[in-house]
Amino acid sequence: MKVVMAQKILRANQQVARENRERLASLTTINLISSPGAGKTTLLEKTIAALKNDFQMGVIEGDIYTTRDAERIAGQGVEVVQVNTSGLCHLDANMVSRALNEIDYEQLDLLFIENVGNLVCPAEFDLGEDYKVAVLSVAEGGDKPAKYPLVFQEAQVVVINKCDLLALSDFDLDTVTAEIKKIKPELKIFPVSAKTGEGLEAWYAWLRQVIREKKESAMR
Amino acid sequence: MKVVMAQKILRANQQVARENRERLASLTTINLISSPGAGKTTLLEKTIAALKNDFQMGVIEGDIYTTRDAERIAGQGVEVVQVNTSGLCHLDANMVSRALNEIDYEQLDLLFIENVGNLVCPAEFDLGEDYKVAVLSVAEGGDKPAKYPLVFQEAQVVVINKCDLLALSDFDLDTVTAEIKKIKPELKIFPVSAKTGEGLEAWYAWLRQVIREKKESAMR
Repeated sequence: MKVVMAQKILRANQQVARENRERLASLTTINLISSPGAGKTTLLEKTIAALKNDFQMGVIEGDIYTTRDAERIAGQGVEVVQVNTSGLCHLDANMVSRALNEIDYEQLDLLFIENVGNLVCPAEFDLGEDYKVAVLSVAEGGDKPAKYPLVFQEAQVVVINKCDLLALSDFDLDTVTAEIKKIKPELKIFPVSAKTGEGLEAWYAWLRQVIREKKESAMR
Repeated sequence: MKVVMAQKILRANQQVARENRERLASLTTINLISSPGAGKTTLLEKTIAALKNDFQMGVIEGDIYTTRDAERIAGQGVEVVQVNTSGLCHLDANMVSRALNEIDYEQLDLLFIENVGNLVCPAEFDLGEDYKVAVLSVAEGGDKPAKYPLVFQEAQVVVINKCDLLALSDFDLDTVTAEIKKIKPELKIFPVSAKTGEGLEAWYAWLRQVIREKKESAMR
């Protein structure tokens, strides 16, 4: 019964996700997923600062109760809509649909959706995004892809963050990269430190490319 | 409907949790909850090594798919039962009840239940434990108690792990301690580094004390 119910919810979610995807046809939408504290918000702050002269960006901030992350992002001068899940452990397509009513998304080139900090549940919910980006922190340890494979299966991109801690940890970048590729060979992997800026240029270059591709396909 | 269903599940869980608690009346049971990679398994390894001459210990290892943590713990020479949740993001009382059928728990002084790595959902499920212990890693950042308050409300103890990274991060131990106390003033807080061993003596002393208290109350 629990399973049946879950499938019903997932089917309903899928329908709303499709509607979101149609509404978002002219821009690029990125669903950021990670454990608590992997550095999604810092990555967003840096990315917005780097790209805001070239692109119009917006952010939907998922959080269970607080507005802390939304306040951090609003400090960057982009439009932010906060979604409080009131205890729920993930964003779903309905929450994103309601958030889209509050944001002038047709003016945007790039919309980030920062999911609730949780490496498990958010992976099951299509929000209508173009790309799921999993953020994995070096401090979490290299066994996480094998232990939480779904998010890596569902993602198109993995950002390995906090690479400034590599020397202090037993996280081996080559081994973890191989583990991730074993789950899904075509995953793009960007090792970065959002704190020091190391590696971010490659991530920005990928964003610039997908924004351009989406625009071109929308104009066809 | 989603909420009604969730309440039904939680009520059924509560009943099984009560039965688990009766079965576990003669020993101390600890439910370890944290984000992925906060260091639950390393904390367990160190704790088992430190206490195994004095106490009989067992471990129920919750994991979504793999047996990696169970293998690490089995290396310590204690009885381990693995529970694979097959995708579910938390342990529930039924899973623990089935695991108890596989373990000679009446011979134990201390049973650890290592929950799935998730700071959100496991907090909602009573497993029949005596204590919920939340493990928070310095690398996750100091804003996590305010952002994920439920687990701190439900816990009796917080272990702040990876204190060897304090100098490298903006995690301020006094500020975070105050934030945690704001959520629940009576929470016991142990700042430790499971890696270096720093601070673990106080955690061991607390475990020795609660094991003794439980035995005394069981004999009354």
